[in-house]
Amino acid sequence: MALLMDNQFGELPVDKAVDTKFFLESVAYLPPFFDCLGSKVFVPIKSDISGNITKIRSVYDKDPAKYATLQQIVESEKEAYGTEWPKVGATLALMWLKRGLRFIQILLQSLADGEKDENNPNLIRVNITKAYDQALKKYHGWLVQKIFKAALLAAPYKSDFIKALSKGQEVTEEDCMANVRQFLVNYTATVDAIYEMYTMLNAELDYSV
Amino acid sequence: MALLMDNQFGELPVDKAVDTKFFLESVAYLPPFFDCLGSKVFVPIKSDISGNITKIRSVYDKDPAKYATLQQIVESEKEAYGTEWPKVGATLALMWLKRGLRFIQILLQSLADGEKDENNPNLIRVNITKAYDQALKKYHGWLVQKIFKAALLAAPYKSDFIKALSKGQEVTEEDCMANVRQFLVNYTATVDAIYEMYTMLNAELDYSV
Ligand SMILES: CCCCCCCCCCCCC/C=C/[C@@H](O)[C@H](CO[C@@H]1O[C@H](CO)[C@H](O)[C@H](OS(=O)(=O)O)[C@H]1O)NC(=O)CCCCCCCCCCC
Ligand SMILES: CCCCCCCCCCCCC/C=C/[C@@H](O)[C@H](CO[C@@H]1O[C@H](CO)[C@H](O)[C@H](OS(=O)(=O)O)[C@H]1O)NC(=O)CCCCCCCCCCC
Repeated sequence: MALLMDNQFGELPVDKAVDTKFFLESVAYLPPFFDCLGSKVFVPIKSDISGNITKIRSVYDKDPAKYATLQQIVESEKEAYGTEWPKVGATLALMWLKRGLRFIQILLQSLADGEKDENNPNLIRVNITKAYDQALKKYHGWLVQKIFKAALLAAPYKSDFIKALSKGQEVTEEDCMANVRQFLVNYTATVDAIYEMYTMLNAELDYSV
Repeated sequence: MALLMDNQFGELPVDKAVDTKFFLESVAYLPPFFDCLGSKVFVPIKSDISGNITKIRSVYDKDPAKYATLQQIVESEKEAYGTEWPKVGATLALMWLKRGLRFIQILLQSLADGEKDENNPNLIRVNITKAYDQALKKYHGWLVQKIFKAALLAAPYKSDFIKALSKGQEVTEEDCMANVRQFLVNYTATVDAIYEMYTMLNAELDYSV
């Protein structure tokens, strides 16, 4: 679990404000997650997510004090952009990024919960499909959904996925999943906080691509 | 035909050496070609091709005199890289780029030749499929081929494609195709010359992704 465990998300403060600097540092380790899926087919997804992170970072870097929390970024942009908002700037980048983060969260949670296809216990398609259905499907038109179905066939075996997640360490599936559970605590809290913030600020859109 | 006609490829010299600087200037206008296909699904293809161009340019920029022609780049890298070559550097980038260029060439040629699905004369799927089969299919594994088949459904109608190609100008299909034919003369000669150079230098690989 080198990949995830070495880069845990921090605990949220009581007001659930997400610190931009820490957030950017932690999510920077997630794009390589898609390399764990083991196929070049996932390169475009990795770039999409990396692009989101770059966009948010470039806004933050303009004025780190003003943009100390993610909410401050979204609120400032709401003021600055008028009717263009929220389909603009870091607000749009974070809107999509959180969906990718949710996808990863649900996938890992489902694996940690031991959900599996009893007929094919070494496949993770059911877990990926669950994550996709809940986090992304509704934001994808029929064509991207169709491409997802094809890409699903490139998903790795569970054993290979676990090996990749644990890069550099010899761990059992059980140990790996214990680490995943540990990682998910603050990670899930952070993703939830971002979703709540989008709802509260009316920053969420549901157009599909 | 603003897109293509304003950025014609130059005529080749008798020795068919492709001038790196002119080549890079001309191909820089091709990635937007994929925007003409009208769907965001083509963004990953556009980035792949842009990445190839960036890679070649970065080698060229290191020593424009030494790398004045594409062949000089490939030959220098052959010397420099030993057994890693040709799956490396600008040699690899141009190996893939030329396939994307060939794809565009065959697609435009097929349209200019009036090849069409008689039952669906306003679709360009037959033209795209022809280009794909000849330029790329053999370098793609079953999964990417499957994704291609799905992506094909996102291909624009012929009339929309022609409108997009002629951006900013009101032209008939006939005028547009006359422009395409004009564009194809030096373009095809350049692509052919690169293919011949790869064969001659034994720089071609046929692994699939
Ligand atoms: C030769 C044959 C070639 C055929 C080529 C076909 C290529 C098909 C490509 C499929 C799409 C790749 C994924 C990218 C999808 C993206 O379109 C969406 C929206 O992307 C957002 O769009 C916004 C504008 O609307 C801004 O530009 C955002 O950018 S901004 O930063 O500028 O604001 C951007 O992220 N992101 C998404 O849907 C997010 C995707 C997260 C993925 C999560 C994991 C899924 C894992 C699946 C595992 C099985
Ligand atoms: C939520 C759901 C998400 C699902 C996500 C699924 C995403 C599927 C993505 C499909 C692939 C997109 C196309 C890219 C394919 C690329 O893999 C290949 C090889 O790419 C090469 O690879 C080399 C290493 O082997 C180097 O890295 C080269 O890079 S280097 O510069 O570093 O040397 C690089 O170009 N290029 C290609 O096949 C070239 C493609 C040209 C395309 C031509 C037009 C086709 C038009 C089709 C019209 C219908």
